[in-house]
Amino acid sequence: MAASSASSSMMKTSRRALVRRTRSHVTTRCATTAPASPATLSAKNEGKGKRVMIVGGDGYCGWATSLHLSARGYKVAIVDNLCRRSFDDQLGLNSLTPIVGIHERVRTWGELTGNDIELMVGDVTDYEFLGESFKSFEPEAIVHFGEQRSAPYSMLDRSRAVFTQYNNVIGTINCLYAIKEFAPDCHLVKLGTMGEYGTPNIDIEEGYITIEHNGRTDTLPYPKQGGSFYHLSKVHDSHNIHFAAKAWNIACTDLNQGVVYGISTEETMIDERLINRLDYDSVFGTALNRFVIQAAVGHPMTVYGKGGQTRGFLDIRDTVQCLQIAIDNPASKGEMRVFNQFTEQFSVNELAEIITKAAPKVGLSPEVINVPNPRTELEEHYYNAKNTNLKDLGMQPHLLGDNIIETLLQYAVQYKDRCDKTLIMPSVSWKESGSKVVTHGNVKA
Amino acid sequence: MAASSASSSMMKTSRRALVRRTRSHVTTRCATTAPASPATLSAKNEGKGKRVMIVGGDGYCGWATSLHLSARGYKVAIVDNLCRRSFDDQLGLNSLTPIVGIHERVRTWGELTGNDIELMVGDVTDYEFLGESFKSFEPEAIVHFGEQRSAPYSMLDRSRAVFTQYNNVIGTINCLYAIKEFAPDCHLVKLGTMGEYGTPNIDIEEGYITIEHNGRTDTLPYPKQGGSFYHLSKVHDSHNIHFAAKAWNIACTDLNQGVVYGISTEETMIDERLINRLDYDSVFGTALNRFVIQAAVGHPMTVYGKGGQTRGFLDIRDTVQCLQIAIDNPASKGEMRVFNQFTEQFSVNELAEIITKAAPKVGLSPEVINVPNPRTELEEHYYNAKNTNLKDLGMQPHLLGDNIIETLLQYAVQYKDRCDKTLIMPSVSWKESGSKVVTHGNVKA
Repeated sequence: MAASSASSSMMKTSRRALVRRTRSHVTTRCATTAPASPATLSAKNEGKGKRVMIVGGDGYCGWATSLHLSARGYKVAIVDNLCRRSFDDQLGLNSLTPIVGIHERVRTWGELTGNDIELMVGDVTDYEFLGESFKSFEPEAIVHFGEQRSAPYSMLDRSRAVFTQYNNVIGTINCLYAIKEFAPDCHLVKLGTMGEYGTPNIDIEEGYITIEHNGRTDTLPYPKQGGSFYHLSKVHDSHNIHFAAKAWNIACTDLNQGVVYGISTEETMIDERLINRLDYDSVFGTALNRFVIQAAVGHPMTVYGKGGQTRGFLDIRDTVQCLQIAIDNPASKGEMRVFNQFTEQFSVNELAEIITKAAPKVGLSPEVINVPNPRTELEEHYYNAKNTNLKDLGMQPHLLGDNIIETLLQYAVQYKDRCDKTLIMPSVSWKESGSKVVTHGNVKA
Repeated sequence: MAASSASSSMMKTSRRALVRRTRSHVTTRCATTAPASPATLSAKNEGKGKRVMIVGGDGYCGWATSLHLSARGYKVAIVDNLCRRSFDDQLGLNSLTPIVGIHERVRTWGELTGNDIELMVGDVTDYEFLGESFKSFEPEAIVHFGEQRSAPYSMLDRSRAVFTQYNNVIGTINCLYAIKEFAPDCHLVKLGTMGEYGTPNIDIEEGYITIEHNGRTDTLPYPKQGGSFYHLSKVHDSHNIHFAAKAWNIACTDLNQGVVYGISTEETMIDERLINRLDYDSVFGTALNRFVIQAAVGHPMTVYGKGGQTRGFLDIRDTVQCLQIAIDNPASKGEMRVFNQFTEQFSVNELAEIITKAAPKVGLSPEVINVPNPRTELEEHYYNAKNTNLKDLGMQPHLLGDNIIETLLQYAVQYKDRCDKTLIMPSVSWKESGSKVVTHGNVKA
């Protein structure tokens, strides 16, 4: 596939550039990078003006995807209610990196590249808002990242569990109705999670499994076992989308994404005002990024339980690549196509080991501690998930190697003074989730 | 099992009594039946004071179950927000039978039998209300019928789709939290639906299926394919319950119930003020009951599409029997046990044929018409669902025979003047569901 090969070779160049740039900034916390030439970016036009609405475009994956597509000639609109920022405000959390407001982000991007991103601040659970967004932007594809995406947040208390399922499930139903009503040819690209599958004792297929039973055969949705009210909300979305795709002849892609690591994509490195968020706290931080930051700030790496928990992982540069591939190769109408979006599997112990090995190269020597597992999950289990659909469409993985770990560690060291170490230890227990609402102070360990 | 044998023989007696009673009333629309002796009912004490909270106890299945259990010595509390009545008010629908208000129902039951049912009017999506109900009643079992239960209602428009999923999913999450917080030993008996499974091309097992795949084996949740936002809401409930049972060590039973037919249970026949509701409209009426009423009022029986759609069915006397069995034999803590709750399978065409055959015995000769199918569903398909778990616990089915059809036809004839024939033809199209809110007049065909 021409488009993704081009994008892949560009990413390789960018990755080398990133390493150089980051190293030179290791001691200057607030340094900004000189802007890339707008001409460089505007030369790319793979997207040919395709109109892509990105719900949740202010978030970690959403922001990187918005810039990636905008740089490649797609006409991008970000739809976001900014609730991810308000969760930080509520709970006293912060991104390790100093992200600026969405208005400044979008303005900066336009000034530096000449590519305008449309910004619509509002909530997709509000159908009037969503309907107007559809009518004014007329999307050809909608990427739906706009969900509460933390398992611990969903288990903080009853109120957050309800918020998570309401926000995610109703937001997705509204997107389906909006497509049906205002843009019937629009392709829904919905972010699910590999966590929908749980940890079955058989291979994990991509969305569907062919079952032979009592002499008959059918291909059915793969059985789901979400491990938190968050993961379950995405299980619910998948079922709702599967139904609506058939009933209303809508084209849908469900991307069951693994745990994303990394921080930089080519575009977010152009200027510090375009920097992406980097979460290290126990509520929003995820395994690999969190360990890197722990190593960088001199906190032991916190392995939950035995550490045999195995999951699929991918570099954020592959997130943006996969999204582009999904958009460029739409599902058929009436189909919910499912891709497992990850590149490699690691156990938590393996991650800690990889970081322990790489750390001395940047002058760090992190410890590893096993802490009581706050979650209800198997700590030793079989895990073998398929991920061939995206590779078949041309996805070329950035595999986890020493280089990316070193780069990430240096990045984390650069911003380590922004880290509030009291936010690192696990603070949300699956078993203790209750109706007593957790207020600010309680999420500190 | 002693309890269910006793209850079964009692039901047989009651069935004969019912046939006699109904026949004698065939021309007297508002006649009340002489009250049974309170002594007769208070003599039964199978429940031995077990405290059972029935959420949705004012509905079709809930009311019959409440009286059935109360008559057998269980201490019953009905929790209901009465929204089923308000749906009738909204859409201009009515029960064929003249049901009285819940306060009068409960008062009448207490006066006639000496068995008090506690009444708590409120909404389980309101956790403060639900928490107080738990604290004051201290349930040992909670039967959760309290969901929006109509597939067409959920497909009326976007607003009803969202209401259905919000109401059902959040209500069930709240019940799980209330059990965890206030009654950790309370057994959750949750009404699911056979419709969660859809119509797979393999046998339908009870909740779980053992899959051998690439040389490995696991027993996993049976794949679900709900055919409306209503059916999907129950799919979501099942996933949420499965998780919470394990994470919080709660005892749960998920009853995937088939289509219920019939009207009378022993208790609802004692006095006309205890009469159960009987829905015939295209939104809340279900296949068998709806056909019977169509036959009784001289309207052709409306087969949707080809009529090969096959489903599981059961007599309402078996609903109340199954509920008692589930309560008497609780699930283990940490387990979500699944029972398929139906007794026989029929296609829509078979139902129409059965009624056509029985009708002349009560002087009726109904027509059958095929109308365009308002739903998105297969009209010819394989269907073979297991239902052994409840039978293994002693359930003794009331099978569909000429007797019950005749009785039902006579019952419908008795109240036929209350029928608004404009409510009969299908009025809710799966393909046309949109954001335009359907108001009263629109649900008439």
